[in-house]
Amino acid sequence: MEDLLHHSAVARAALTHVRGIELEPIFNHSVRTFLYARASAASAAEEEIDLEALFVACLFHDSGATGRHDGAQRFEVEGADAALHFLRGHGWTRPRMDAVWEAIALHTSPGIAERRGAICRYTRLGVRVDFGTATLAQPGYVELAEAEYPRLEVERVLSTTVVEQALRRPAKAPAGSWPGALLAAYEADPHSDRLNPAF
Amino acid sequence: MEDLLHHSAVARAALTHVRGIELEPIFNHSVRTFLYARASAASAAEEEIDLEALFVACLFHDSGATGRHDGAQRFEVEGADAALHFLRGHGWTRPRMDAVWEAIALHTSPGIAERRGAICRYTRLGVRVDFGTATLAQPGYVELAEAEYPRLEVERVLSTTVVEQALRRPAKAPAGSWPGALLAAYEADPHSDRLNPAF
Repeated sequence: MEDLLHHSAVARAALTHVRGIELEPIFNHSVRTFLYARASAASAAEEEIDLEALFVACLFHDSGATGRHDGAQRFEVEGADAALHFLRGHGWTRPRMDAVWEAIALHTSPGIAERRGAICRYTRLGVRVDFGTATLAQPGYVELAEAEYPRLEVERVLSTTVVEQALRRPAKAPAGSWPGALLAAYEADPHSDRLNPAF
Repeated sequence: MEDLLHHSAVARAALTHVRGIELEPIFNHSVRTFLYARASAASAAEEEIDLEALFVACLFHDSGATGRHDGAQRFEVEGADAALHFLRGHGWTRPRMDAVWEAIALHTSPGIAERRGAICRYTRLGVRVDFGTATLAQPGYVELAEAEYPRLEVERVLSTTVVEQALRRPAKAPAGSWPGALLAAYEADPHSDRLNPAF
């Protein structure tokens, strides 16, 4: 990551911005998501990926799960808009910004994100590696990433945050969405100490 | 619709193709979806919409809920692929075909489809008008459409079809998706005679 941060002012600005608005467990998860997304892309025999766009997408992908961006839309879309707002003024083309928007908006859409462009596909894959539903070809890489960016119970923090947002504004958790599934599972057993079973 | 069918060979071919693979309740719902999507677009003060693309998107949007296209992916994505397959050979540009793909793939994604391109947005809106969660500005139009293309309990047919597909292949109904919500609601009360409450 140091290489990218060294030559990309937008990556440095994104890192600083997201670190300033996210709880550490979510920030660390976002960095790991980028590391895994990049590692997955590197293993695939495809054309080179736009690493700056991938970085911004991964860093901002949960930025809707913050007090700063707790707007009326579902958190995935609030996060996508937050990234777009951040990118304005950086002189990016529309397709490049749209790829970031789409990657963030669709990162909880199983079976759909995997079929869109490379930024969207690898952001989703990075998330899945971090939550254990996909694996990396590189042995030992996850352990290294988690040593540098500890998990800090991110599953619990993220599900609690999304549910709290949804309790305040149920329209943020529509049926057939990931926030909706988290809210329904919470409401079925609100006093449970276990991790939300819909996570 | 006659105007469009009169001058567009691809619209005529789409109508014939979809009528040949879909149960009548789902076919009628697809035609009504187009009528409502077009009516909504006509009421909006926006640039003119690509009616051929909107027609193909609306006609094929539930084509994944058929025996013909009951593949391994969630039905929205199978339907999007079916439309793409149909469009090959019609000489459409990639962005035009992608707008159709996206509209079909995202038609059950609340809060996301509404933020994509016009074909996606209006396909979703047409579906919502037909299922009563959005309304048209044109009085009496729904009644006319339903007289010509009767509902035939489409909610029941569609939910039953999606659940049957999911029971055979659970991977088609991932958590946090509309098929997943339908499957979970079915499994909570499999002997119910009521409409699936997640519909």
